[in-house]
Amino acid sequence: MKRTMINKLSNYINEEVKIEGWIHRIRTLKSISFFIIRDRAGLVQCVVDNKIIESIEVKLESVVSIIGKVNESNNKLNSYEVQVKSIEIISSCKEELPIEINKEELNINLDTMLDNRVLSLRHERINSIFKIQNLIVSGFREYLTHEGFTEIFTPKLVSQGAEGGSDIFEVKYFENKAYLATSPQFYKQMMVAAGFERVFEVAHVYRAEEHNTNRHLNEYVSMDLEVGFIDNEEDLMDIEENLLKFVIQKIENEGRYYLNLLNVELPNINNSIPRMKLSEAIEILKKEYNKTELEGDLDPEAEKLICKYAKEKLGSEFIFLTNYPRKKRPMYTMPCGENETHSFDLLFRGIEITTGGQRIHEYEALIENIKYKGLDPNNYESYTEVFKYGVPKHGGLAIGLERITSKMLGLKNVREATLITRDRTRLIP
Amino acid sequence: MKRTMINKLSNYINEEVKIEGWIHRIRTLKSISFFIIRDRAGLVQCVVDNKIIESIEVKLESVVSIIGKVNESNNKLNSYEVQVKSIEIISSCKEELPIEINKEELNINLDTMLDNRVLSLRHERINSIFKIQNLIVSGFREYLTHEGFTEIFTPKLVSQGAEGGSDIFEVKYFENKAYLATSPQFYKQMMVAAGFERVFEVAHVYRAEEHNTNRHLNEYVSMDLEVGFIDNEEDLMDIEENLLKFVIQKIENEGRYYLNLLNVELPNINNSIPRMKLSEAIEILKKEYNKTELEGDLDPEAEKLICKYAKEKLGSEFIFLTNYPRKKRPMYTMPCGENETHSFDLLFRGIEITTGGQRIHEYEALIENIKYKGLDPNNYESYTEVFKYGVPKHGGLAIGLERITSKMLGLKNVREATLITRDRTRLIP
Repeated sequence: MKRTMINKLSNYINEEVKIEGWIHRIRTLKSISFFIIRDRAGLVQCVVDNKIIESIEVKLESVVSIIGKVNESNNKLNSYEVQVKSIEIISSCKEELPIEINKEELNINLDTMLDNRVLSLRHERINSIFKIQNLIVSGFREYLTHEGFTEIFTPKLVSQGAEGGSDIFEVKYFENKAYLATSPQFYKQMMVAAGFERVFEVAHVYRAEEHNTNRHLNEYVSMDLEVGFIDNEEDLMDIEENLLKFVIQKIENEGRYYLNLLNVELPNINNSIPRMKLSEAIEILKKEYNKTELEGDLDPEAEKLICKYAKEKLGSEFIFLTNYPRKKRPMYTMPCGENETHSFDLLFRGIEITTGGQRIHEYEALIENIKYKGLDPNNYESYTEVFKYGVPKHGGLAIGLERITSKMLGLKNVREATLITRDRTRLIP
Repeated sequence: MKRTMINKLSNYINEEVKIEGWIHRIRTLKSISFFIIRDRAGLVQCVVDNKIIESIEVKLESVVSIIGKVNESNNKLNSYEVQVKSIEIISSCKEELPIEINKEELNINLDTMLDNRVLSLRHERINSIFKIQNLIVSGFREYLTHEGFTEIFTPKLVSQGAEGGSDIFEVKYFENKAYLATSPQFYKQMMVAAGFERVFEVAHVYRAEEHNTNRHLNEYVSMDLEVGFIDNEEDLMDIEENLLKFVIQKIENEGRYYLNLLNVELPNINNSIPRMKLSEAIEILKKEYNKTELEGDLDPEAEKLICKYAKEKLGSEFIFLTNYPRKKRPMYTMPCGENETHSFDLLFRGIEITTGGQRIHEYEALIENIKYKGLDPNNYESYTEVFKYGVPKHGGLAIGLERITSKMLGLKNVREATLITRDRTRLIP
């Protein structure tokens, strides 16, 4: 008999079906027992005559195959239940469960959750985080594909970091040293120049940052895009705005079930996202919140405050900050006047989720800016070489997948939106 | 004025448009010149009065913005052309082009192609390879998403290789050592066990293999899937067969333009793919081709010969070989009898493009098999631990993206289907 998924059982009232899944809950009465069975599609109550399970050991989280009849019923879960005819243990749970995963709320601390990741993920609410994350990623790809973008896969083993700096993992590459890419920056620009014009990549990037905060991971998923033939960074913010609207609409349409489980309200971006110069933001922070000593960038507290301001005064949970200083932005960033750049960050619910901007597309200007940043152009030759052969005006941005997921779902730590965490101390599981 | 893409120009006959792109070809007559302009969507002939370009330097591969009128015309490319009113150089090509990219055929050797990757990719035929590759990947995701799979992102920084062995890159991870994942094997199994049941991942994997052949890369894209609640490996071959049919149909529907450019015929898999025991294949190779000394696996020549046999005698360009010996398969493979396994390879046009099989889902059997393979179960604890808590029967497979792309398109070297190659000697660009 073919397996029926639990969310399809209502089509089989009074019929015999086979269901397979985990034993989620057990309640044993004198002559019958109630099992709740869980598969990837949902939960269902099963009624078992205790004689049927006399000779087998039934334990929470064992995997079973059940044949039974679907009856109408009034129970908390559904308007039907399964009257069990036979039950087979596919794989029994062999040890005491280290965490209780059959409760409404999984009340465990983060370390326990991550140490027991396979079990904590079995909890419907934890599982739902990644169903929503799937919709964010597929929405990102779907929107961009429709807009003429080509998906690219670029190397994560590189000979040189995109931005210098020490936050970079070293790899033994045969007789040479290689590094793990901190961003696909150079390659996505190269692919614009290679004639694809519009490219995106969804892939891991690596940051060897020492600090262990609730917003940093050492390996995370970067959703990158790069666009040729733009006028300036305004075009990029337009793209991101429309992209986010599309993604949020997709989650609204396809993720309702998971949003309800998570009890989450999606952000509203029916209006356009406010755009403000960084310098203006710094002025506002000083005046409104007495937040001083910000030098060309915001600290985490300032990010929270300017988001608070945007929400209360501008009616938006998102805010673009623009015109970051040249000193603070990487060498490939297009300058704007003497001290600023054609760049932006997107902040959302208190945290930066995107960095983006227009890039330098002229060879001489690029070499000059590399020097301005105190770097040696010779170290970037395979990248700068490209700009000798005709490169359109272009720019791009990157969205941190775990950050946007966690902020969208109101999670406190970016690790909760990461299947398997890699941070300062976690290399296992 | 908004830019019009070249493939949309036929909608603007007798109208003024702006087009932007690279100067692909130049032919100068006495009073007029013909430019061919290339953007990501195609090529178009432009007619320019030489007076317009008197004061500017026009060079091949410079990026330009042109305003002009679309006229009906008889030229090799289209039934229209653009009469140029003004031309602006966005970015000029500054040096002699190291390769000629405006010819019908790009007659350069592989090294030159890879050394000048941004330029070689500008050639329509080279570019088309990656448009088809996009369709393979998006077809893979689309089919599986429709079949209830969840996309996962699992760490590439791992504490231990999935299969032991020395073909593994070492990374300095703060005070510890880490390795680059050779496969998402353990994690995809864990995610099946975590209740997702059906998962896929499209991501880089890393093999520190010393040899430098036309079929190996040190960093490549693996399209992985893993499925719970299967009966055995036959279910997996069914899934792969349907998946490939879907992907090929998608390329046929959406990639015609690129297939024509590449002059390629897609493989026919209207019938089902033959399945043959490895031992039987070895017998056939001995009898039909006098190919001897094969011990539990095929060598590259044997792979070619059995594909020849499958094509000529079984009418299929694909063939599944099954029941690989236990000694040759990794420790997680489900044994089948004393010496064989529930495993398979898929061969296509002379090369293995998939390895797959059923996995062991019982803790004790897994520990036993780890020992059978001469490995120490203690080294795999964070993986084996999972199997104590109820894991369904499951299995999976992986398809090498560059291999299937290159074989589908008749490319001689897997590097031609890789945007930026990482091999024994290439860490740049």
